[in-house]
Amino acid sequence: MKKSLLIVNTGDGKGKSTAALGVLMRAWGRGMRVGMFQFLKSGAADYGEYQAAQKLGIEISSLGDGCSWESKDWEVSREVNLAAWEKVKEKITSGGYDVLVLDEFTFLFHFKWLDATETVDWILQNKPPTLHLIITGRYAPQELISAADLVTEMLEVKHHYKEQGLTSMPGIDR
Amino acid sequence: MKKSLLIVNTGDGKGKSTAALGVLMRAWGRGMRVGMFQFLKSGAADYGEYQAAQKLGIEISSLGDGCSWESKDWEVSREVNLAAWEKVKEKITSGGYDVLVLDEFTFLFHFKWLDATETVDWILQNKPPTLHLIITGRYAPQELISAADLVTEMLEVKHHYKEQGLTSMPGIDR
Repeated sequence: MKKSLLIVNTGDGKGKSTAALGVLMRAWGRGMRVGMFQFLKSGAADYGEYQAAQKLGIEISSLGDGCSWESKDWEVSREVNLAAWEKVKEKITSGGYDVLVLDEFTFLFHFKWLDATETVDWILQNKPPTLHLIITGRYAPQELISAADLVTEMLEVKHHYKEQGLTSMPGIDR
Repeated sequence: MKKSLLIVNTGDGKGKSTAALGVLMRAWGRGMRVGMFQFLKSGAADYGEYQAAQKLGIEISSLGDGCSWESKDWEVSREVNLAAWEKVKEKITSGGYDVLVLDEFTFLFHFKWLDATETVDWILQNKPPTLHLIITGRYAPQELISAADLVTEMLEVKHHYKEQGLTSMPGIDR
């Protein structure tokens, strides 16, 4: 009997991180030990989920140096995110969590900062059998999809307000 | 400048309600007034999101009589859910909310309990201009998709643990 899951939320649409946040809230409601580690994003960003997490006492950390695709120094982004991954590996093996979210983690494969086969092998070998691990982000590699128990693709059917030039609404998008 | 959105999360995959829950958490973190009304589901159900919502003081109500597809009395389900919709209409027009989620509401169209054109017209005419409204559920009708600002389809790419006979894990699915 399977005790915990490797879950992947991918695709171009919205709701990948938000659904992971909803799972955290649900698990937190059941008294489970939860945490969310966000790659790419920097800690300085003003996201609504931080404010909620702070009020709840849920651990959410931004480990990147801002959105990497806006970064002026690609090499710094790579180093910051790889150092973050080393820290998160310790969190994964610590036994201190029931549900962990690695938000936007797929980009570390997409940018070729991490090897997918090697990293997925590490996860399968080191993830405690009771830890649910949720990985979000576009372009999930096939190696990750093959290893996962549950994969959902969020598809953008319509994004009318983006077409109107509105890309981010407080409380809804961030 | 658009002030609020009509958002639809549809498709066969997971994450429709959970992403809405994540938005509620994010908006709550920003001090917005939020609520979630769940159709079909009965209040007696043991969902993790209730426990989280109770701890946070977020209003979440189940307005159905249990999952309708398991209901023994179809006519009772119809009446219960239509009465619930009348109550939710009052919530929508009350001005007391910044974000409202109508969870599984699409089934009221799917089961032909509500007329899509008439109901979408009512929403467009009566939703306060500052209220974000999020509707979730499979089989969103074209009338609703046409009216929405943002539509995401959650696609099930892989659901390995369902294939293993495990359909619902506490903290993850409920």
